[in-house]
Amino acid sequence: MHLRKNDIDNLDRITRLKIINSVTGIKPANLVGTVDNEGRTNLAIFSSVIHLGSNPAIIGFVSRPETDDVGHTYTNIMETGYYTINHIHPEFIKNAHYTSGKFAKEVSEFERCGLTEEYIHDFKAPFVKESSFKMGLRFREKIDIKINNTVLVIGEIEELLLPEIFSIDDDIDLQLTNAVGISGLNSYYSLNKIERLPYVRLNEVPEF
Amino acid sequence: MHLRKNDIDNLDRITRLKIINSVTGIKPANLVGTVDNEGRTNLAIFSSVIHLGSNPAIIGFVSRPETDDVGHTYTNIMETGYYTINHIHPEFIKNAHYTSGKFAKEVSEFERCGLTEEYIHDFKAPFVKESSFKMGLRFREKIDIKINNTVLVIGEIEELLLPEIFSIDDDIDLQLTNAVGISGLNSYYSLNKIERLPYVRLNEVPEF
Repeated sequence: MHLRKNDIDNLDRITRLKIINSVTGIKPANLVGTVDNEGRTNLAIFSSVIHLGSNPAIIGFVSRPETDDVGHTYTNIMETGYYTINHIHPEFIKNAHYTSGKFAKEVSEFERCGLTEEYIHDFKAPFVKESSFKMGLRFREKIDIKINNTVLVIGEIEELLLPEIFSIDDDIDLQLTNAVGISGLNSYYSLNKIERLPYVRLNEVPEF
Repeated sequence: MHLRKNDIDNLDRITRLKIINSVTGIKPANLVGTVDNEGRTNLAIFSSVIHLGSNPAIIGFVSRPETDDVGHTYTNIMETGYYTINHIHPEFIKNAHYTSGKFAKEVSEFERCGLTEEYIHDFKAPFVKESSFKMGLRFREKIDIKINNTVLVIGEIEELLLPEIFSIDDDIDLQLTNAVGISGLNSYYSLNKIERLPYVRLNEVPEF
């Protein structure tokens, strides 16, 4: 199937959403935890978390802050400066998925969706107790993406909690940590590690 | 295991790279194809491709353009305004991985890594023939991420080629399209679709 720009523009809104939300490939499944200055917690699923750099350890995610009834994650981060990112695991995909409902600010998705707030040391934002791979971030910068009125929210990792099962000589094995991927808006995947290749040095490139 | 900011800062560079490159979760495996104004093609693996919006169909990826010996993807896009993004499939993970070598500009990774240039209609940049899910993009905007000297390169989809196997009523099934995920720098994953949930309406949220 070949869609050209005009074909894409002419798709109905829902079909276009489903297709274009899948074309980048698999996306990571994470929950972002926040709290406002009155102590009201919020939890929201995001598939747009992205690695930006390792030194400092900088992570971004894309947010749509410009509507009234959603964007509590964004406004809480602006208020407090702190948030958590928590991997989703297969056992609580359904709970995590329903955090995408447009709940009122008074409703905590932790409580409504059956997930547990966890506070670690004096870190201000709530972690998800059910997640075994999670991090606490300090807000560093927001970058407006004017082309479609979204924002890239950038933070630095201050706390990193992860399972003991990774080898320091290898990438973290996301099959062993039970990480989950997303396509589009509603489809969830488990992962099978199928290949591990070395860092590429020019004099070691095989003939193809 | 719990690493705090000081622990992360004090890791050796390679260990920190491996860990922090995995903490966002699974990343999509894509090849970006470009050509310069002299007709020299380039192909490079990226794990930072991200969906930014569906209308218009806007995709971003993160690039590190500020070194001499890498960044041909970025400079070619600045030169010509066009590029392709091609899904990696299990049969050519190894070929795709080795495009990360720091080849000279005169070397085309298509040829050196055993992948085939494909030109579709009059689209300026080369596609990867071996990929069954790919798109041609027109450069729209670059956004400097000053915090670590990277750039978010933003483009709009002008051509979209994808397998016939997806259902218009559902997200595209990335298990059926043989999409691949990456953790860290060197580890590759296949995908198993395990759950599909509905769009969330507040009055349909189950009790948890």
